[in-house]
Amino acid sequence: MNIPKIDHIGIMVKDLEAAKRTYSEGLGLKLAKEEINEAHGLKVAFFSCGEVMIEVIEPIGPGIAMDFVEQIGGGVHHVCFAVDDADAAFAEIKAGNILDSFMPAPVTGAAGSKVFFLSPETIHNAQIEFAQHA
Amino acid sequence: MNIPKIDHIGIMVKDLEAAKRTYSEGLGLKLAKEEINEAHGLKVAFFSCGEVMIEVIEPIGPGIAMDFVEQIGGGVHHVCFAVDDADAAFAEIKAGNILDSFMPAPVTGAAGSKVFFLSPETIHNAQIEFAQHA
Repeated sequence: MNIPKIDHIGIMVKDLEAAKRTYSEGLGLKLAKEEINEAHGLKVAFFSCGEVMIEVIEPIGPGIAMDFVEQIGGGVHHVCFAVDDADAAFAEIKAGNILDSFMPAPVTGAAGSKVFFLSPETIHNAQIEFAQHA
Repeated sequence: MNIPKIDHIGIMVKDLEAAKRTYSEGLGLKLAKEEINEAHGLKVAFFSCGEVMIEVIEPIGPGIAMDFVEQIGGGVHHVCFAVDDADAAFAEIKAGNILDSFMPAPVTGAAGSKVFFLSPETIHNAQIEFAQHA
């Protein structure tokens, strides 16, 4: 597996509008883009920081993101590694005996990307994503 | 505030030796350094990934790291931003009315770095650190 860099860090919040002010005015980070993902029940703002994006996420519908925010009040949630070929990375993980994914295959993510998550129990309970950008 | 890049991502685990195998053999990341921080009760392995380090941490004594691992089983814990001058960043945060730090001043971190954490309640419950390297 070749991971050239971290693609983004996912941070869950209760109120994206308030968080946008904190990240832009408090930290001085640049808002790169925003989107609403109705299918996954998420509102998202991306801030750029060096070669990595910071994905600030407000859950707007039920799911694991909403559960996370309700249980612990939000916080740093996942790390997403950049890969050149998500299908190849997924196949390599499935063929190995260390990591695994609970997903049957990579799915379409933001802006036409191809993404998948690992099964947390195979990586010490961390939420780890992989993304190949279009 | 000028944040040129993310310095590292902190990920808490229960068993650092097992996690070292997962991150090196499973993900193919390069182990950059290891250290034991007796003062803070932590065993740490750093893996490099592009311009960011991944700090995999096993708590070996009581504290907020141990609490985190016991409560949720481990996972992605904090983001650390790189700054050129930790004292200046700390002063700027204290002088502003958006962010705050629960610490009286930056402290000495790994390898002679100067670090501080934000008060989580001022940044939507996230664990956010700043580090200036020696």
